[in-house]
Amino acid sequence: MRFFIALLTGLFLATAPVAAQDPLPSWRQTAAKERILALVHQVTSPKSRSFVPHEDRIAVFDNDGTLLLEQPVYVEIAQVIDRLKSIALTQPSLRDVQPYKAALDNDSAAIAAMGSSALFDLVAKTNAGMSPDEFRAAVDAWFKTTRHPRFSKPLDQLTYQPMVELIRLLKKRGFKVYIVTGSGVEFVRAFSQRAYGIPPENVIGSTGKLAVVKKGETLTLLREPQIDHINDGPGKVIGISETIGKRPILAVGNSDGDYEMLQWTTEGSGARLGALLHHDDAKREYHYDRNSAVGRLNRGLDDAPARNWLIISMDKDWKRIFP
Amino acid sequence: MRFFIALLTGLFLATAPVAAQDPLPSWRQTAAKERILALVHQVTSPKSRSFVPHEDRIAVFDNDGTLLLEQPVYVEIAQVIDRLKSIALTQPSLRDVQPYKAALDNDSAAIAAMGSSALFDLVAKTNAGMSPDEFRAAVDAWFKTTRHPRFSKPLDQLTYQPMVELIRLLKKRGFKVYIVTGSGVEFVRAFSQRAYGIPPENVIGSTGKLAVVKKGETLTLLREPQIDHINDGPGKVIGISETIGKRPILAVGNSDGDYEMLQWTTEGSGARLGALLHHDDAKREYHYDRNSAVGRLNRGLDDAPARNWLIISMDKDWKRIFP
Repeated sequence: MRFFIALLTGLFLATAPVAAQDPLPSWRQTAAKERILALVHQVTSPKSRSFVPHEDRIAVFDNDGTLLLEQPVYVEIAQVIDRLKSIALTQPSLRDVQPYKAALDNDSAAIAAMGSSALFDLVAKTNAGMSPDEFRAAVDAWFKTTRHPRFSKPLDQLTYQPMVELIRLLKKRGFKVYIVTGSGVEFVRAFSQRAYGIPPENVIGSTGKLAVVKKGETLTLLREPQIDHINDGPGKVIGISETIGKRPILAVGNSDGDYEMLQWTTEGSGARLGALLHHDDAKREYHYDRNSAVGRLNRGLDDAPARNWLIISMDKDWKRIFP
Repeated sequence: MRFFIALLTGLFLATAPVAAQDPLPSWRQTAAKERILALVHQVTSPKSRSFVPHEDRIAVFDNDGTLLLEQPVYVEIAQVIDRLKSIALTQPSLRDVQPYKAALDNDSAAIAAMGSSALFDLVAKTNAGMSPDEFRAAVDAWFKTTRHPRFSKPLDQLTYQPMVELIRLLKKRGFKVYIVTGSGVEFVRAFSQRAYGIPPENVIGSTGKLAVVKKGETLTLLREPQIDHINDGPGKVIGISETIGKRPILAVGNSDGDYEMLQWTTEGSGARLGALLHHDDAKREYHYDRNSAVGRLNRGLDDAPARNWLIISMDKDWKRIFP
């Protein structure tokens, strides 16, 4: 009899699609994974006290450092550096002027150290004069020619597989999933669909001013050099409110620029979750937090326990990092 | 044999759910209906030369005068008038000051005649100081107490049934349908789901500045009295680009404020359609166009033939107007 049960169990294990049943196979079986799955179960099970109807299941993810590698420099800034280089090559007088000099020297640390306000300004200026469509095509072409200095892969392929699995699970359970990024909205829209399965219209980001102009008899949109909305810090709460008009159930970030987004999300009533990805894995990725110019995580680490935010350890909670 | 065929035909006609098969039962069998159905067929039939994949099927509708009665005054302005009244009642010194006096006199024509720039300003100012959630609750409560002067119905129930049917058809055929309105985005979000089945996140509208402030330890959003984005005329093209990032396949409006939205839509490649609802039905609704302060349609009427835009006649093309 015991043999018979063992045989049946063995048959079951051999035939059951165990891997397919785990919606988050790249996550280790830790408390972090359990807490995420518990939240999803709570808000989507019709009999749960915390059930949330379909239309209010909103999840928001930061982009850089949360869904995508952001070291040694944010991907959008890497694109800006290459734009600066090509501008300096055609205008030699700029070669000794910052930030062109730093770009030509491949000194991304110096560029990152300019600080976020100067960077937002730089992003708006370097890609002005194009239409959003032209800009997206330029970004597409740029991705095809660039590789990450350490991982030697196209930068839009260095996505975090555990997060892509989480996005897939959430969509399957009726969530609308948005990217809420400090990067330019058109920049992230250029790859959001192929990288994460998130369509352009579900990307909320920083925006520059747009002008509607006539080219001959035809209307065209042009990117102007002025910033319109900085979608970072409290700006993320404003971006979510203006675009979605609903408070999210789940917010995932990795830096202090996500603080207010997590705070606003988790201050809502009912079951909600704020989570921060902690980059503590120097071997497989990078180790950085309180003192990093890129993706600084300081207040978030301090306040996470009191606010009951989940800290996801890249080292301990993720079995696999990249696809 | 002939009798037999006639019998079979009769049986078929008697049992076939003819009404259920017509996706637009409130539209008369006119060229307008044919052209709309042809466009939907063209872009959604896999074998069509003009086939558009699911993810690029974007349709945009203006709100006031396109989906909803806008006479004698835009619904949002009716709400503003009532706000002005209640402010004037608590501050008697305002009773002889415009626009409070006009509000107290129920002189909506005088308010409408202020012009769109002054009206946008007025909208931003009268509802400042609330959070978007509080504002939406206030709008909800207001709809419950107000009736249309001629039709004696709640203002959010005076929707155009033929348009609601068209929205339903488009959604069924894989379109994402957005409202692109000159009215405040939060105002239209308050009723878009119940009135048209369009969720708040699919409403693009004018916005006022928002501030993120702390109430005690909790984050709150507050509506500030300044306008941020005027989603009218060329502003509609900017709103669509910033929020959706795709050029629509179908754009439906009714006034010159929709001109650029239709132009931008129909200047794209492939099969596209721009349509303007002409209010030419004084008996069942209103007759107005070139000289109306509310919903003026002048350039659109002039240019529709050359631009191949469809003019929908409320009088001739619609069997039924309201639900």
